[in-house]
Amino acid sequence: MNIFENKINVFRDTLDDHLIDIYKTGPKYLKQPINHTLSGKGKRFRPILTLIVAETNNVPIEDAIYPALAIELLHNFTLVHDDIMDKDVLRHGIETVHEKWDENTAILSGDAMLAISLKLLMRNTSINKLDLIQKFVNGLLSVCEGQALDIEFESRKNVSIDEYKQMIHLKTAYMIGLSAQIGGIICNLPTSKTEDLREFGECIGMVYQVQDDLLELFSDSESMNKSLDSDFELNKKTFLWVSTPEELKPELNMILNKFHSDKIETINSLRDFMVLNNIKRKAQNFIEENIQKSKLIIDNMEGNVQFLKYYSDLIFNREY
Amino acid sequence: MNIFENKINVFRDTLDDHLIDIYKTGPKYLKQPINHTLSGKGKRFRPILTLIVAETNNVPIEDAIYPALAIELLHNFTLVHDDIMDKDVLRHGIETVHEKWDENTAILSGDAMLAISLKLLMRNTSINKLDLIQKFVNGLLSVCEGQALDIEFESRKNVSIDEYKQMIHLKTAYMIGLSAQIGGIICNLPTSKTEDLREFGECIGMVYQVQDDLLELFSDSESMNKSLDSDFELNKKTFLWVSTPEELKPELNMILNKFHSDKIETINSLRDFMVLNNIKRKAQNFIEENIQKSKLIIDNMEGNVQFLKYYSDLIFNREY
Repeated sequence: MNIFENKINVFRDTLDDHLIDIYKTGPKYLKQPINHTLSGKGKRFRPILTLIVAETNNVPIEDAIYPALAIELLHNFTLVHDDIMDKDVLRHGIETVHEKWDENTAILSGDAMLAISLKLLMRNTSINKLDLIQKFVNGLLSVCEGQALDIEFESRKNVSIDEYKQMIHLKTAYMIGLSAQIGGIICNLPTSKTEDLREFGECIGMVYQVQDDLLELFSDSESMNKSLDSDFELNKKTFLWVSTPEELKPELNMILNKFHSDKIETINSLRDFMVLNNIKRKAQNFIEENIQKSKLIIDNMEGNVQFLKYYSDLIFNREY
Repeated sequence: MNIFENKINVFRDTLDDHLIDIYKTGPKYLKQPINHTLSGKGKRFRPILTLIVAETNNVPIEDAIYPALAIELLHNFTLVHDDIMDKDVLRHGIETVHEKWDENTAILSGDAMLAISLKLLMRNTSINKLDLIQKFVNGLLSVCEGQALDIEFESRKNVSIDEYKQMIHLKTAYMIGLSAQIGGIICNLPTSKTEDLREFGECIGMVYQVQDDLLELFSDSESMNKSLDSDFELNKKTFLWVSTPEELKPELNMILNKFHSDKIETINSLRDFMVLNNIKRKAQNFIEENIQKSKLIIDNMEGNVQFLKYYSDLIFNREY
């Protein structure tokens, strides 16, 4: 195990240790679903990014952990509410809150997680605390707007690739950009540097989302495939869908319509369709462009960027 | 019309003017339900309290309006989510969001209203901005916890009067106390004075909630009566319920059980039961105690408190 891998594991364990203890008081009605949600084996991808930026700038983990936890709580708030909307029954290998309890419990414990997230965010010693809060609050609205567009697109006949990019930027990339940026703000870096971190993080975020779209169809991992069901059910607009040329849409729809009668067959036909028509290639190109953009940004950063490079490469090469 | 009544109307109109314009950009999926919710004829009771405190301390409305609007947005976020949980179909004379659209729309537009609320809150020039945000965030968790207890109590066989008081303090009184306190924080009043304002507001809040419990049963206003349906359906624990002595609970339950077969008859029996057994009187005494406590606090405040007195009397004498 190299030194970076080791540190990432320490970060994840530290985050997990805090998460299981994050909400001890308060009504059982909230404690149980919140602790259940946070006991899931999440990757802790976003807060680890924050902690790496802090580490790289020689700020100890104690000074960065609470804003990092705030980001993870905000992320989990969105997952709990999104899972209701998408009717997903599993998340991180465990039952979703609305499935294990009911929708009311999921709505309210999601709301409470957001409140806890904001309380955690306040616990930092940055000289730019107000700026940090402002950006976080903007991120919260961004995530809601991205989710709203995602739902709006379900019932739309046409969604352009630019509209799709705007949607994933709001829904995913903004908060991942913020995860890196907040690391910089905690370290009191100058604005130009925290902006670079944000841009770097947003590139990772764009890659992450399109990877998701690709992995859901092409990965053999069971957990990735599962999301396909609700995607098809809800007529979700993925990168692959919006990148399919108009003249091929009738063929695509014909394949998708077979999903209920034969799932395996549909997945195989879809894979062939996306490969043969170079649509998978378009997704891979988009990912590659954003990886290159992120590398350009990081190469222009001063200081020790090896850890950030290592971490982003891990994400770029992920298979689940 | 006296000068205070006139000012309250100006405040309400100013708030309403801002509210219909509060969210102009962003996805239609959010804009429509948010604008629908905010077009309801709410009393704007909380933000008016903030504006009165500012006015009393000679701070112009422009400097207080955004935090006041933040409080109203937070309040509406809780209403939209609570209405899903309680399955209420009408609010402020118009359809609730989950009824007019669906639950997903209500969940997400509620979340977005909270995000907008926080953005509005950031727009203030107080020297104690961080303190203001911290208190607001605490209030958000308080409201969630109060709602959680309210739901927990539905399935409980016994709820003590102290547990009930804790629940309404978390769910209602904290935010009304905060509405007054934030008015003071915007005016940069010293902590001792903003604490007095908070305590004063919390008394109003306790009165307000128990008045609700009383009015729902005893008022002839249609809008108050409507909530009775979901209260009975959900087995809500009201002040009247928790104040009924154990030995009278069997009789109370017998009356409540008739609700489905004859609503009017049940309401009449309940009214008689609460009057004859002096339970209505207990509620009135609790209200009176809190009114007296609020008057003590206000009498010890320096400066011009006539407007605050007038406004709290309006609330104390409300009939709907």
